[in-house]
Amino acid sequence: MKYVSFRKDGQIRIGVRMAAGIIDLSAAAGMLGLDVPASMEELIASGETSRKQVEAILHGVSNAEGFPLLDEDHLEFLPVVSAPEKIICVGLNYRRHAQESGMSVPDAPVYFSKYANSLIGHKADVVLPDGVVENDYEVELAVVIGRPTKNVSVDEALDTVFGYTIGNDLSARELQRRTSQWLYGKALDGYLPLGPWLVTVDEVSDPQNLQLRCTVNGELRQNSNTADMVFSVAEIISDLSRIMTLQPGDVILTGTPEGVAMGMPSPPWLKPGDVVVCEIEGLGRLVNRMVAH
Amino acid sequence: MKYVSFRKDGQIRIGVRMAAGIIDLSAAAGMLGLDVPASMEELIASGETSRKQVEAILHGVSNAEGFPLLDEDHLEFLPVVSAPEKIICVGLNYRRHAQESGMSVPDAPVYFSKYANSLIGHKADVVLPDGVVENDYEVELAVVIGRPTKNVSVDEALDTVFGYTIGNDLSARELQRRTSQWLYGKALDGYLPLGPWLVTVDEVSDPQNLQLRCTVNGELRQNSNTADMVFSVAEIISDLSRIMTLQPGDVILTGTPEGVAMGMPSPPWLKPGDVVVCEIEGLGRLVNRMVAH
Repeated sequence: MKYVSFRKDGQIRIGVRMAAGIIDLSAAAGMLGLDVPASMEELIASGETSRKQVEAILHGVSNAEGFPLLDEDHLEFLPVVSAPEKIICVGLNYRRHAQESGMSVPDAPVYFSKYANSLIGHKADVVLPDGVVENDYEVELAVVIGRPTKNVSVDEALDTVFGYTIGNDLSARELQRRTSQWLYGKALDGYLPLGPWLVTVDEVSDPQNLQLRCTVNGELRQNSNTADMVFSVAEIISDLSRIMTLQPGDVILTGTPEGVAMGMPSPPWLKPGDVVVCEIEGLGRLVNRMVAH
Repeated sequence: MKYVSFRKDGQIRIGVRMAAGIIDLSAAAGMLGLDVPASMEELIASGETSRKQVEAILHGVSNAEGFPLLDEDHLEFLPVVSAPEKIICVGLNYRRHAQESGMSVPDAPVYFSKYANSLIGHKADVVLPDGVVENDYEVELAVVIGRPTKNVSVDEALDTVFGYTIGNDLSARELQRRTSQWLYGKALDGYLPLGPWLVTVDEVSDPQNLQLRCTVNGELRQNSNTADMVFSVAEIISDLSRIMTLQPGDVILTGTPEGVAMGMPSPPWLKPGDVVVCEIEGLGRLVNRMVAH
């Protein structure tokens, strides 16, 4: 299933992407007289209950004539989750990216964070603050946790995942390097486009074998495979769950491959007008334009 | 005003601490037929509306005979806020603590984060995970933001504060040092006692002149004054607001003074049974016991 969070008539809604178009779940449930999860957060957290509600709605829609579908081109996309308890990022988690950053491949996952203020949706503009120059892109496989998780083994870790999406871990490098801790260069408003779809785990056969790429104004910058990760998705979830309880809706950004601007001799920092496209096999395309403040 | 968040009959409630005892705001509002903020989050975010509701309740209570007060000794304290969008910590922000850590005094605030999974209340037990040894205490002045804030000047920064409380930024030093980024040693479940009271700004005349101390089993370990901060509360808020929108309920932990276990020749790491008391002038005492997993 490919879920989407979007805004319509001032309300936040959940949709399901079908081949023919997007179904507005609450509109469909209303027409069919069925129950619907109130939010993406509830849909993720309530597990089987929500899954059955959605199945009933889709079944009802498939039997109805001329059911209205939403046009993807006119949708106001929101980030697939909007208020996670945690957004956990993993740094230096691709071998060749660690090399281009002049760092050694880490012995343990390197964690840092963003907050919900950074979340924006597919097609939303990224506002580059005045005076911040070293703006960089990072395409990343993003994991959305599906259930409360503590002390899970590596073998069972993927069972805790609700789905996957694409994150662009935008970074202001001069602020990231200001002190030893990266947070200040990572936590800017709007610096985490997340979407377009939240793709449930059944559609992703192996998270460690997905092509991912990033283009800027059509020019290929990053082109790799999640097979190059130092620590796998399962290892990261298990390691985090040793010290913290992961919650439904928590987002883990699993690191970026080589090809970021920072790694180039004359870094082509992002500037107003640039369009960044992040793509991951089976998860779609996340498109965002940079704009001036 | 000294607000408190507590649990009663399975519900999260807000109280106000008076000289004679604690008033349960929702119980009082119910008896008086008055409106009450539904949660501490709403109380903080709604500003003047909530302030007037609380004033009306307290006025009603002062005119009522024999109004029931709650006994502080039998209260189940909760963290003063439970689901902030952000918990932002400042590292190395006291001159003498930077020295004892073997670090130079920073040129810019060093930010890292915790998440809401770390929050616990006054008197709640801190569960030390199996195999984690280097557990350390850090008494800190905690700031709770009162309104959406972007690009605020240093001069106006304190106007955005709702109130102050005490935080104990518990840290697992061997996990904090595992990589360059401190998060993994900071984000453990229950490693952020926060309370006991949320003290509104009108009761704190100068946040840069507060004595703060920490004892372990009655032994004095930290004893300093917020005057030793490298970056003031106002400077931190202004600096953060340059890159992010601070939200009502956001928590900023402003760093710890010298005297942590890590800074001692034979560090007296916290172990099960230890009782840590953090005190800040005018804000009360935050007491938590360490227990084994």
